Amino acid sequence: MPTVQIEMFEGRTLEQKKLLVQKVTQAIVESVNTAPENVKIIIRDMSKENFATAGKLAIEE
Amino acid sequence: MPTVQIEMFEGRTLEQKKLLVQKVTQAIVESVNTAPENVKIIIRDMSKENFATAGKLAIEE
Amino acid sequence: MPTVQIEMFEGRTLEQKKLLVQKVTQAIVESVNTAPENVKIIIRDMSKENFATAGKLAIEE
Amino acid sequence: MPTVQIEMFEGRTLEQKKLLVQKVTQAIVESVNTAPENVKIIIRDMSKENFATAGKLAIEE
Amino acid sequence: MPTVQIEMFEGRTLEQKKLLVQKVTQAIVESVNTAPENVKIIIRDMSKENFATAGKLAIEE
Amino acid sequence: MPTVQIEMFEGRTLEQKKLLVQKVTQAIVESVNTAPENVKIIIRDMSKENFATAGKLAIEE
Repeated sequence: MPTVQIEMFEGRTLEQKKLLVQKVTQAIVESVNTAPENVKIIIRDMSKENFATAGKLAIEE
Repeated sequence: MPTVQIEMFEGRTLEQKKLLVQKVTQAIVESVNTAPENVKIIIRDMSKENFATAGKLAIEE
Repeated sequence: MPTVQIEMFEGRTLEQKKLLVQKVTQAIVESVNTAPENVKIIIRDMSKENFATAGKLAIEE
Repeated sequence: MPTVQIEMFEGRTLEQKKLLVQKVTQAIVESVNTAPENVKIIIRDMSKENFATAGKLAIEE
Repeated sequence: MPTVQIEMFEGRTLEQKKLLVQKVTQAIVESVNTAPENVKIIIRDMSKENFATAGKLAIEE
Repeated sequence: MPTVQIEMFEGRTLEQKKLLVQKVTQAIVESVNTAPENVKIIIRDMSKENFATAGKLAIEE
C-alpha cells in the first residue's frame, strides 16, 4: 500500500496534476510490484514563501 | 507524545473538526495508555484536485 | 479518504496497535461522515532519542 | 522543488528502490516541468504492523 | 540531506519566515555537520481550526 | 505550536541530536515569537538507501 506525498510549488494546472498522478502511479507499479489500486497520492501545493534551500526562501531567489 | 496528522477532503465544518479531535484523542488515550495532554493533532484540508487513487484524481471520479 | 499518520513512542504491543487503529478509524467515521474503507492509518514508532519538547529530547527527561 | 515521501511495506530490494526513484523522478519531470535535480525522494519502510485500512492492521489480513 | 517540515500557525510575515529558515538552517549546520545547501525546509501554514491539543482545537481556547 | 519533522541520515550521535533540538528550538523561538514549550520536534533517521536526488539513491553516490 504505497502512500505518496508530493510537495511542489503551486500553479500547476489540473491537466499537469492528472498526468502527474497517472505517471507516478505507473512508475511505482512497475518498480515495486504492487497493484495501481494500492497507490494513494497526496499532493500539497506550496507557496514560494514556504520553501527554502540553504537558508533562503524560494521567493527571495 | 503521540503526534497525529490527518489529511482529509476540505469542506468539513468546525463542529465536525471539534468532534473529530475529541474522538480521535479519546481513541488514542484508551488504546495506547497516554494522557490526553500528550496528543497533538494536525488536520490538513485537501482539495479533490490533490488526492489520487489508482492514478486518478478524486476530482475526476 | 482520510489518511492518518501517527507518530508515537516505540514499545506498544501488537494488541495495542490493533486497538488503536480500530478505535481511531471508528472515531473518524463517526465524526466526519466517511466509510471505514476510506480511512488509512500509518503508524511510525519513534525512539525517545527522536522526540523533543522545549529543546530537550524525551530520553533526557 | 518537488519533495516526495513514499511510505511502503519493507522488504523491497535495493534494485527495486533504485528503479523506483529513477522512474518516479522521471514521471515528475515529464509531467510538471521541472529538472531532475529538483526532485528529492524520501522512502520510508513500513512494517505490516504499522499500516491499517478500515480499522485493521495489514498484518491481520 | 536534512529535510525539514515545519507546521505552524498562519499569520507570520515574510520577514519572520526569512529569519526562520536562515536560523533553522544555521542551527542544523552547526549541530549535525552538514553543508547549508543540503538543508531543505518546507513550511506549512496552519489555521487555528486545524490544530488540537488534549482533544481541543486551538480556535476553541 | 510549531511542530517540526526532521529527516536526516542515520548515524548522528545522541550528543548531536541533543544539540540539534536545542539549537533548532532556539532558532524557532527567536524568529517566530513563540515559547520553547510550544516547539515539538520529531527526528527520523534515514538510511542512504532511502533518499534520492535526481533519481539516484544516496547510497549509489
